[in-house]
Amino acid sequence: MKQTKKQTSQGMKRRGFLKKAAVGTAGVAAATVAAPAISQGRQEIVMVSTWPRDFPGLGTGAQRFAQMLTDMTDGRLNVQYFAGGERVKPFDSFDEVASGNAHIYHGAEYYWKGKHPGFSYFASVPFGMTALESSSWIRWMGGQELWDELGAEFGVKCFAAGNTGVQMGGWFRKEINSADDLKGLKFRMPGLGGDVLAKLGASPVSLPGSQIYENLVSGAIDGTEWVGPWNDSFLKFYEAAKYYYYPGMHESGTITGLGINKAWWDGLSKGDQLLIDAAATYVHESMYSEYNAKNGEFLAKLINEQGVELRKFSEDVADAFGEASEEVFEETRQHSDLAKRIDDSYQKSLRTVAAWMNIADGEYATQRNRVLGI
Amino acid sequence: MKQTKKQTSQGMKRRGFLKKAAVGTAGVAAATVAAPAISQGRQEIVMVSTWPRDFPGLGTGAQRFAQMLTDMTDGRLNVQYFAGGERVKPFDSFDEVASGNAHIYHGAEYYWKGKHPGFSYFASVPFGMTALESSSWIRWMGGQELWDELGAEFGVKCFAAGNTGVQMGGWFRKEINSADDLKGLKFRMPGLGGDVLAKLGASPVSLPGSQIYENLVSGAIDGTEWVGPWNDSFLKFYEAAKYYYYPGMHESGTITGLGINKAWWDGLSKGDQLLIDAAATYVHESMYSEYNAKNGEFLAKLINEQGVELRKFSEDVADAFGEASEEVFEETRQHSDLAKRIDDSYQKSLRTVAAWMNIADGEYATQRNRVLGI
Repeated sequence: MKQTKKQTSQGMKRRGFLKKAAVGTAGVAAATVAAPAISQGRQEIVMVSTWPRDFPGLGTGAQRFAQMLTDMTDGRLNVQYFAGGERVKPFDSFDEVASGNAHIYHGAEYYWKGKHPGFSYFASVPFGMTALESSSWIRWMGGQELWDELGAEFGVKCFAAGNTGVQMGGWFRKEINSADDLKGLKFRMPGLGGDVLAKLGASPVSLPGSQIYENLVSGAIDGTEWVGPWNDSFLKFYEAAKYYYYPGMHESGTITGLGINKAWWDGLSKGDQLLIDAAATYVHESMYSEYNAKNGEFLAKLINEQGVELRKFSEDVADAFGEASEEVFEETRQHSDLAKRIDDSYQKSLRTVAAWMNIADGEYATQRNRVLGI
Repeated sequence: MKQTKKQTSQGMKRRGFLKKAAVGTAGVAAATVAAPAISQGRQEIVMVSTWPRDFPGLGTGAQRFAQMLTDMTDGRLNVQYFAGGERVKPFDSFDEVASGNAHIYHGAEYYWKGKHPGFSYFASVPFGMTALESSSWIRWMGGQELWDELGAEFGVKCFAAGNTGVQMGGWFRKEINSADDLKGLKFRMPGLGGDVLAKLGASPVSLPGSQIYENLVSGAIDGTEWVGPWNDSFLKFYEAAKYYYYPGMHESGTITGLGINKAWWDGLSKGDQLLIDAAATYVHESMYSEYNAKNGEFLAKLINEQGVELRKFSEDVADAFGEASEEVFEETRQHSDLAKRIDDSYQKSLRTVAAWMNIADGEYATQRNRVLGI
């Protein structure tokens, strides 16, 4: 590969990988400077994430990516994985990769909405797509191209690498029968979902997972959402709030994303790029299918063993949520031409795929479940 | 790796790869006899499939697997792909791989139900799981282990590598308002779905895709199912039958499967096994998301440009279909202990995951689509 001026500049950037790499720094430097066009050299790859180590689903999924890429290359692409806080703070993961201090992050793209609101669409937006719908959008309906354009502005190349599925609406101390019942509630819900709650008169609070329980028990917050039955049951929110609401209109299928330092990515061989793509897709499919497998089992336990009261949001709440979401989208579109194009593409694809899913999986499951008594 | 008696016998079998390989036979023989524990040797891999070349979704998905595995190893695992009929007839693909004449097939496992009725569960059974539900079952709820046990009886190791999603109920010349309207119909529907139709008084006919149109136009059959809007529109069934029914209760999420000669698989390094697993999952996710992306677009075209009349099966038809499916399951369970264990695991997992999907994707999509007018 010719050493052009651009590549020299990339070589400069790549030296950033040296700065903080605790292990195998010589390997990293050699590999990134060599940037082999044919995948043959051993590379030490530094991966950071926003999740606690071994956190079920999200953390184990990110770790599965690191293990998969390492194992399927017999260690030629050797990934050193750092959970949230082990190398940098969770929310510093993006900058760590964009700046070239690490090669790859795993997180949820809405964490970077302060950099550009368009990132939220590649994780989850209120009243947005389900996991299946967003997979179709990203791979086949122009989503990946827009994500590439957005990522390039910040020096990252991103892939979908996981999904939690539809989250639960959250834990409440009292029943929510209409949108009015949300007014004045101090409720833990970060991101655009929190913005929607604020429009409905609630006071959204942003808290990391580790601090939710104590705030809920002390009464500092009136309720909280987290993920779904599998993840939520370990945090024992049911001890302080018995009403468990569905569906989670604030996060209807949250994609977890892989972000890769773009200069490093551009220097990889086609084969190595495909290996990363395949490992990302492997985690995408396996994380989502694990959430669906576990959530049913843990929801049954919550109801039968902890006396949790399952409740469905009323149509009135859904209507209010839908209207407030429109306002949030409108604000996002004001940001930039790219934000507007992302929203256009997202909304159009949502309607096309949803119309199909409605008569396919939707109607089928409804009919079958009715007949089988599910 | 030590040359045990078992491996010698596998070596014998592997010579089968030599017999029909048109290209690169020396490479195949060398690779299979060497069976390297560390993935480094170049291997020529022969892959057959049950699909016509370039058939959208199914065929292009199988071809994507071949390309992916080849490209992500820079040709070290070099897959020679043969579409249905190019090397062996489509339905001879299983035997070609089990006997060691080829390394890998791509098809739908219900094609092999004559060998063992348990195979149907790893493609689709009437009134069965959706694509998402079966992904959870196979990867996380014991499905893969049962598939491995079943495959081992015939010398193959299998993976899920694609899904069509919920298929359409099919094309009818007249409206179907109750189960009685199905009586006496000559309807093209293969497999267990056809068995269900027979129990409802119809005459199921099995025809390959290429012969359906002429039989429908001539009146030799009264109707037909195929896949869904994307695939069906190219075969122009709408010229002879205007009523297009949903949902397809006979195939509620048909998995396409990859079958691998087990003796060859067992000799592969862990790294190469994971490469195949990852490429299979890549095709699984990408084929299914492509069907969901395309079906919505093509359904709109069929309705708006061809005057197709979309109809939903009534509850009466669904009830009858559900009851007849129970009988088909009962017959399958009689076959063997393994068939019974597969059905037990399948039915239990279906109910666990469906209960979750119902309040997650199901309720969410219903609420959102109502509010957005989808």
